[in-house]
Amino acid sequence: MFNNADMHFSTNHGARRARLAAEIEASDVDAIIVSDLTNLRYLTGFTGSNGAALVWAGSDRDRDRISTDGRYITQVGEQAADLRAEINRDCPSALLRVAAAEQPGARVAIEGHVVTVSDYSRLAELAGEVGAALTPVTDAVERLRIVKDADEVDLITSACRVGDAALAALIDRGAITPGRTERQVARELEWEMFALGADAIAFETIVAAGAMSAIPHHRPTDVVLRAGDLVKIDFGCVWSGYHSDMTRTFVLGEPQAWQTEIFDIVLTAQQAGRDALTVGAELADIDAAARRIITDAGYGEYYVHGLGHGVGLQIHEAPGIGAAASGTLPDGATVTVEPGIYLPGRGGVRIEDTLVVTDAGPTSLTTTSRALRVL
Amino acid sequence: MFNNADMHFSTNHGARRARLAAEIEASDVDAIIVSDLTNLRYLTGFTGSNGAALVWAGSDRDRDRISTDGRYITQVGEQAADLRAEINRDCPSALLRVAAAEQPGARVAIEGHVVTVSDYSRLAELAGEVGAALTPVTDAVERLRIVKDADEVDLITSACRVGDAALAALIDRGAITPGRTERQVARELEWEMFALGADAIAFETIVAAGAMSAIPHHRPTDVVLRAGDLVKIDFGCVWSGYHSDMTRTFVLGEPQAWQTEIFDIVLTAQQAGRDALTVGAELADIDAAARRIITDAGYGEYYVHGLGHGVGLQIHEAPGIGAAASGTLPDGATVTVEPGIYLPGRGGVRIEDTLVVTDAGPTSLTTTSRALRVL
Repeated sequence: MFNNADMHFSTNHGARRARLAAEIEASDVDAIIVSDLTNLRYLTGFTGSNGAALVWAGSDRDRDRISTDGRYITQVGEQAADLRAEINRDCPSALLRVAAAEQPGARVAIEGHVVTVSDYSRLAELAGEVGAALTPVTDAVERLRIVKDADEVDLITSACRVGDAALAALIDRGAITPGRTERQVARELEWEMFALGADAIAFETIVAAGAMSAIPHHRPTDVVLRAGDLVKIDFGCVWSGYHSDMTRTFVLGEPQAWQTEIFDIVLTAQQAGRDALTVGAELADIDAAARRIITDAGYGEYYVHGLGHGVGLQIHEAPGIGAAASGTLPDGATVTVEPGIYLPGRGGVRIEDTLVVTDAGPTSLTTTSRALRVL
Repeated sequence: MFNNADMHFSTNHGARRARLAAEIEASDVDAIIVSDLTNLRYLTGFTGSNGAALVWAGSDRDRDRISTDGRYITQVGEQAADLRAEINRDCPSALLRVAAAEQPGARVAIEGHVVTVSDYSRLAELAGEVGAALTPVTDAVERLRIVKDADEVDLITSACRVGDAALAALIDRGAITPGRTERQVARELEWEMFALGADAIAFETIVAAGAMSAIPHHRPTDVVLRAGDLVKIDFGCVWSGYHSDMTRTFVLGEPQAWQTEIFDIVLTAQQAGRDALTVGAELADIDAAARRIITDAGYGEYYVHGLGHGVGLQIHEAPGIGAAASGTLPDGATVTVEPGIYLPGRGGVRIEDTLVVTDAGPTSLTTTSRALRVL
């Protein structure tokens, strides 16, 4: 009754909870209450707007529970059929009571980067009443989510294919052309993705023309595309919960020398960043591989953001790839590589792909040509 | 350069910060750091994905600051031209330093319902270093946002008009008809809203046919609409940041007696809920006015959610209207009224409007006929 791609997942959720169980065992707690909705979906398949999961350390997955409120009784039974559900509006409190009843004195982790100060105060008070001990932990599920399983890579690939096909359709029908507005192009690109089966757009589509292209994260306006403009398009869609992310920059009519110059530098930098996506590479070194090209060309001050980020159930997730990033790139990570040069008042170029890291090198899941295209 | 509707706002942001300043003065703090992005937009007009504002108690608005990172330098200058900007990736920390430098020993509030346990730990440590005192406060900006100013009501009205017009277009062209899938109808309704100028959809459109209509929050699937089905459509759009929300339930072909029965009960309950939207009414009494109709008709157990919620910069915001709600309804609130009856395995009916509360009574901003429509 839910769509096939969602069902496709169900066998993986228990395995994911088992990985989390091993992770939290190392943190010396008995269980964790996961209340971040994306993490909840990852661990259980449940997509409602209110819920939490209780995952126990150890190998007994039958003790795990899910909680949601009365609106989702049917949905949770379909999407998380392998988990007993506590129906309660205040899901973390309900699960904390369950944990304390199941194991008096249980040491229960909560997501310190998710739970607010106010909610933590309430939960800590309840923990005292029911006889449990609360500990904040950070990013336990997010760390697991960095490495995608094969089903996840398939879904991200599907999302990327929709993005490629939608952009190709717009180019083919001459939709990116002088006289149209940024908003018209953005909406048409989004419609095309929906028509191709996307569940949603991945984020507010960026279409930035002329001087606007120098704003890294520009919202489309009624500004009209004009001959001579750089047009930067950064967009993606959602396919069964998984995101795509791609940026291409076009030029309307014959490019001017400065446009070609910054385009070529960004493309070279982007290729260097892609080439640096090897298993075990330091994240900061990957950023440096691309940034060095732009800095050496004299445009370092016009490249004001990091090189890339993980992509999956969220459009921005771990690992961040930037100058200050720590850690290394694991096999199976899906990340963007997206350097740019932005010249205020003139225009900017960004080129971005979504890639999966493998032992055999990175594979780009977005496949639209990166060569400068004159429209 | 940003769209006109956004610019239209700029005069109100200072007034909103002045209201917040008065509110926090009563909480005995010197300043507040607002890091919730919706609250930030409300107070400053800034729409980027990373930012925070520092608002001081007292009447000197020149001391207020905004912070965002390097990606948004141009955008923050456009959208929050009246505020000095601190450019820093870690906005709350940057503003805490500013506050302590401006007023040594400052008592600074943070949003306890927004800031996570992890971030609070970091900020508390920094507060110790720079000589400031941190205090969590709850819902300070959310309380202000309940009462809409005239510009906000205009934007919500525009969003509602788009929703009405989009649904009318689908009905007129016979798009809601046996043989089509829930997903097809949902996507077509969304395209129509985009074509009418919407910036985004307000939430994942609900199109639920036949037995699926008994699931309050159903995601559209490839289930095909069939003759005899109830079809419940709950949808909205975003217009310059402001949301619309409406539900209508249709029947495909001649209604059966049970369908007409629950429809009429829900419609009567919805009208009772609307009639109860008077300035100063207790929120729980408003819920009761509608719920009583359904309970008295013997369907109380099949109405599993609250009566309504505030609508504005978020699709769900204060005030919540439910059996356990406390507080009263102020003049200028915009809220939904949306009772329902859901018969598992058979079907359900929900009827929902978005209304603005005034001294002269409620005005429905959604205007599609509520009578049972046979398609």
